[in-house]
This record gives sequence, C-alpha cells and structure tokens, in this order.
Amino acid sequence: MARIVKKFGGTSVANVERIKNVALRVKKSVDAGHEVAVVVSAMSGTTDQLVGWARDVAPLHDAREYDSVVASGEQVTAGLLAMALQDLGVSARSWLGWQIPLKTDGVHGSARIADIDGSEIVRRMGEGQVAVIAGFQGIGPDNRITTLGRGGSDTSAVALAAALKADRCDIFTDVDGVYTTDPRIVPEARKLDKITYEEMLEMASLGAKVLQTRSVEMAMNHRVRVQVLTSFDDKPGTMVVDEDEIVEQQVVSGIAYSRNEAKVTLVGVADKPGIAGDIFSPLAEANINVDMIVQNVSMDGLRTDLTFTVPAGDLDRAITVIEDNREHFQFERVLADKNVVKVSVIGVGMRSHAGVAATMFRTLAENNINILVISTSEIKVSVLIEAKYTELAVRALHTAYGLDG
Amino acid sequence: MARIVKKFGGTSVANVERIKNVALRVKKSVDAGHEVAVVVSAMSGTTDQLVGWARDVAPLHDAREYDSVVASGEQVTAGLLAMALQDLGVSARSWLGWQIPLKTDGVHGSARIADIDGSEIVRRMGEGQVAVIAGFQGIGPDNRITTLGRGGSDTSAVALAAALKADRCDIFTDVDGVYTTDPRIVPEARKLDKITYEEMLEMASLGAKVLQTRSVEMAMNHRVRVQVLTSFDDKPGTMVVDEDEIVEQQVVSGIAYSRNEAKVTLVGVADKPGIAGDIFSPLAEANINVDMIVQNVSMDGLRTDLTFTVPAGDLDRAITVIEDNREHFQFERVLADKNVVKVSVIGVGMRSHAGVAATMFRTLAENNINILVISTSEIKVSVLIEAKYTELAVRALHTAYGLDG
Repeated sequence: MARIVKKFGGTSVANVERIKNVALRVKKSVDAGHEVAVVVSAMSGTTDQLVGWARDVAPLHDAREYDSVVASGEQVTAGLLAMALQDLGVSARSWLGWQIPLKTDGVHGSARIADIDGSEIVRRMGEGQVAVIAGFQGIGPDNRITTLGRGGSDTSAVALAAALKADRCDIFTDVDGVYTTDPRIVPEARKLDKITYEEMLEMASLGAKVLQTRSVEMAMNHRVRVQVLTSFDDKPGTMVVDEDEIVEQQVVSGIAYSRNEAKVTLVGVADKPGIAGDIFSPLAEANINVDMIVQNVSMDGLRTDLTFTVPAGDLDRAITVIEDNREHFQFERVLADKNVVKVSVIGVGMRSHAGVAATMFRTLAENNINILVISTSEIKVSVLIEAKYTELAVRALHTAYGLDG
Repeated sequence: MARIVKKFGGTSVANVERIKNVALRVKKSVDAGHEVAVVVSAMSGTTDQLVGWARDVAPLHDAREYDSVVASGEQVTAGLLAMALQDLGVSARSWLGWQIPLKTDGVHGSARIADIDGSEIVRRMGEGQVAVIAGFQGIGPDNRITTLGRGGSDTSAVALAAALKADRCDIFTDVDGVYTTDPRIVPEARKLDKITYEEMLEMASLGAKVLQTRSVEMAMNHRVRVQVLTSFDDKPGTMVVDEDEIVEQQVVSGIAYSRNEAKVTLVGVADKPGIAGDIFSPLAEANINVDMIVQNVSMDGLRTDLTFTVPAGDLDRAITVIEDNREHFQFERVLADKNVVKVSVIGVGMRSHAGVAATMFRTLAENNINILVISTSEIKVSVLIEAKYTELAVRALHTAYGLDG
C-alpha cells in the first residue's frame, strides 16, 4: 500500500471520454490498495478560452479577477472526475483550493504556496476516499482565489504530495518520460528510468518542457519522488529522485538545447573596472535575464568586446536599454544575432569525472562547429553555437557520451 | 441616490461584447450617483454545456459535484464583468457565493438561502465600489458550493436586494417587461407599467416565463421592489410592487395561458367519503402536483366521475400511480387528455369587482368554446379548454376585459 498523488494535465482530461479513462486508471490504483489523491488541470483549450475572454474584455485586467475566472477551468474538471470515479463505484470528492485550504501569498497570477492543510484529505484517504483536487489554484490572504502561474498544476501536485506525505507523485503528461535528448532530433534517444532532481532542473530550465522548473525545485526541496509518465498507456515513466537513489550514475544523463536565445555583442567597450556592472545593471532593472557572458581579452588594454545572451523574446528590449544607456558606458557598436542555439550536456556524474567539457569541445570541433560562448556549472556544460548546427551538434554529442540506445 | 441591485441573465452576458455593454449600463447608473450591486448568470450556453458534460460523465451524479461544476459558469461572468467595469474606470470586484458568504441549506441542486452577510458589500458600495456577484450559487453547511436550482439567479438577486436593503432590484431579461398577455398571440398586448406581487406570482406560475415564481415569492415576502426590463435598450420596464403603490387598479391586469397541462378523468369512482384523499394521497407521495379538480354530481349516489389536471410531463407517471392503486379506490376506467390548455384572467382588482368570472364564461360561450374545468382564487379565474381554442380564447378575453392597447 502506498500513498500516491497523481496529476493529469489538460490533454489527459481534454474531454468526457478521457476523463472517464483517467477515472479507470485511478480506480486501478485504488483497487491495488493505494491511497490516491488526484490533481487535475483544466480541460485542454479551456484555459486559453478563459484567458482570451479576459484579454478581450480588458487588456490590462485585475489579476484577482483573472485568477477567479481562469481557476474555474480546474473546478470543472475536478467535479467531473469525482463524478466519473463515483460512477465506477470509487468513493471520491472534489476539493477546490479554498476548500482544502491551499493557502498562498497574495501575488495573484503567480502566487507561491504558503501552507497546505492536508489533514482532512489524509483522514478521508484513510477511509478509502479519493481526493480530486483542482490544480493551479489556492486562496490568498484576502480570501480570494489565487493561481500559481504557468505549469501551476505540477507545482500543486508536488506541494500536495509533500503536504500529504505521499510516497510518490505521478505527473501524467503527453510524453512518456524524460529522454536522453529530444527524440525528434535523435531517434536513438532513450527514456531514462531515473534522473536526479538537479539534472531535471537543468533539463527543465534548458527547454525540455516535461516538468515546470518550479515544481522540480519544490520536489527537490521536499524530497518528493516524482514520476513523469503518459496517461495514454500503462508503461512506467521516468522517476525524478535523490542522487543516492541512483546506483550506477552515468557521467552525462542527457543533452538539452534551447533555441530561445539571442546573442548580443558590444564592440569596443572601454576596458575598465566596473564596466560590466554599468552594462548589466540597467538590463537587470528592465527584468531582462542575462545568461551566458564572455569578455574578450583586451588587446590594447583600452577597448574590448563583450558578448552575452538574453532570451530571444527580450532581444529588442535589450538593445533599446543598451542604446538608452550609451552615455553611461561607451562602446563602438552593438551586434545582435538570433540565429544561435544553446546546447548543454547535463549529468551529476561530471562532478567526479574530468574531461566532460573536453569531450564536448573536441566533438564539436570534429564536426567543424564553432563555439561562440561557453558557460559551465557543477553539473552541466553549455555552449552557444550557430542555430544551423543544432541537430548535428546534438546528435554528435549524444553519440560521443555513449547515450545512443 | 439609490441603492440598486441589477441582475443580468445569460443572454445579456452571452459574449464579451455584451458583457462590455452591461458594464456601460452599470457605469451609467454609477455615474448617476447610485450604489450598485450586479448579479450575473452564466454566459448563455455555458450552463447547458456544463450540465451536458456532467450527464455524459455520469447519468446519476453527485449533486455536490454537479453544483461545483455548474457554479463555475457564473464565476467566469462575474470576473469578466468586474474587469470590464474596471476598464471603464469603475471600481468593482467580483464576489462568489462562498466569499460573501451567501449561506444556504444543504439541499444541493436546489438549495434555499438561509442567510446573507451583506455588511462588507454594503461598506464597499458606500465607498463607490460595484459588487459583481455570481448568481445562482451559495455555500452549504458542509463548506461546499450549492446552487439554487432553476431561475436561481433571479432568486439570488432578490435575496441580495433584501439583504443589502436595496431600493430596487432590476431584473434584465430578453423581454422588456410584463405584458397584459403574450404579444405573440395578441399583437395589441400592452406592457404594464406596474403589477402587484400577487399578480406577478400568478402570472409566473401560469407560464409567463418572465420571472421565476420563487423570486417573486421572495420579493413579496421581503417587499423588494422589482423591475423587469430588457438590457437591449434603455426603456423602463414593468415594476412589480406592493398593491398600495398602484393607484388606479385595473380589474383584470392580464391574461395568462399554460399549455403544460394534462387532464385526467376517473370514470365510475365510488361516491363515498374519503375517496378524494384515497386518490390524491398516492399522487402527492409521487410528487405529482394536482391542480384543478372537479367532481361531477353523482346521479345515483353510488358512482361519480372525477376530473383533475396534472403537469403534462407527469401524465404518464400519474396514470401509473392510479393503476397501481386500483385496489385502494375502485373506478371503471381512466381517461387522459393532453390536448388542453389552462387560460387564466388575473387581477387584484377582482377582489372588489363582481362579474369577472361571468364575463369570462360569457365571452368563451360567445366563441363556442367549451369549458372543461374551472378553478378560481381570490385574484384569478382559470378555465381548462381544448388546446385548439388557445389563441381564440386569449384574444377574445383580452378584448373583453378592455386590455387592447
């Protein structure tokens, strides 16, 4: 007997038929003797419709009203799934954020969970009742509905798993697990049985859209064992777990890439102390996230070039901010390039293995791929390359690190 | 300055455009210095969709889950209208049933309002904030969402008007007021400026679908002045008021008809004391509402005929109940007829005027219309006639009582 939180995303509950299928799947788990809580998203399409209405009514709308409107989507799914379970003879009831209560701070639209009182749900689970919980929503200090922001249902599920002291949190998505890399680029990509929180976090922030970064952080902080799997078949997925649960650690677990990057180069910047702060402070104030940075060695000790990356969507704003601050830091000209991609190799094993970065650089060189910028962390090495080399680089690295199935 | 509750039905808030129009209308009222609370229905079509999903998921579903699902429709409209008002510079916030709180009993699906705490809303109205209230919903003793049943938003509005001590409750519908009779049958029908609660109650229960019977009862009990009007133009509608507000009372205010009737005749019933109770008790237990009753004079003192009406939708069940109880009351045979209509003349003025019924009977006789059953109350006379005479009877009576415009 285990206590399991199961989270079903929008495509898994897209219509009445799929909701009934989810009910069958939950029943199977209940019949196997497990205590089950289910967290549901809105039926796919619903949230977009509600968001669209809100935008059409008032482009700049009150986040409190927005939250109340969009949270209704999960309310519908929760009620319908509870009905479907009851129809199968499974005791069930729906819970809205305010009923649990799942308390959040007052930042409507992207609230953070403050406290979850899981006692009544735990008591009822002990009596065999399935808790069907509307994801994505909570209640703020002002007694109004809050929402947790993008991917909020994953966060709801992990937070509830922590509050209910669940043995596992199953996240059902439209992919069947976490892969060594994108199978659309590398057909040899393998599904990982296990991955560490830290690796998952890097994967998530590097563009693998399996789990929301925030939910992985929360899982890591509360040591919630998370399984990523699909609701469309019965195969096990990928377990996201603590490092010590993985006996034989690969040096590199996966190759990720992100096309959402743009490169900015300031040519002929004055090479003097404090110049980097002068440049990056106004960008930070404009809420533009600067990622990779490289400063060329100054040849004459007076002028140098500075290259960095920003999210592609923020490029135009970044250029404007830089031009507007020309008086605070001199430079000759600014170059921008969106035709870049960030490719990363990730693995907690590289902490204890030298040569991971060297293998990466050698592999890229062998394929005549020029590295524009490099950045490293304890468990990943990222390089910025020209976008046209994306597939070539990912495939070559996948092979070089022995990840091909 | 007045305090006004305005209720907008589903067609008035059917899409973003109409919600914006409602916001403009509310703004006009606010600009005129009034304190305004708005009660909204779900966008038309939404409730049907939600009810359809619930039915498809599980034909016999938990009323508590049903309530949570369908109440989401009003939640969406309330949030959107609050946004639309804010967009026009009008201070506004939405209120859900549980936030007010609007407390009900625990009869999910058709809950009755137990208590409304309007203090915070009144305080905010005093500061110029418009309260946008999700109609149709409340919160039960189990801390779960309840709904008030059919036409519940009208009831919400009138109950809130009473709780907020509003000067008036405006019910915006797709008709522009209460007419002397159905204008589709009688083009000369006139819109009434005023009508009494008692008359409105008779009209409502006789098939004029302008207001829900329950909301009229509540308005009468709490002396809430109700105005029925359309949201599609700016004309005043019909005020539903206390009798003493109407200075020059017409003898007859309107002619109503209901096609939702079926006639049952028990032929050859034993003519003995208590027989009526024997017949009608099992019908009452089956929750079948018997309306008009006539018992023929017994010719031989042994056997008689008994005729009564039931709602057309309950006819088959009524026949079954009667057949099942054959052992308890003897009769020769049972006849059923759905081709009947109930036509009623209504007016508080008839309390002090004799001859109203006589005019009715004479008018029908002049048109060769046979009366099948008669029933009367203090302020109405109803007759059951063959359905084919509906239009003829209504038109002739409208003229006979001087109601033609």
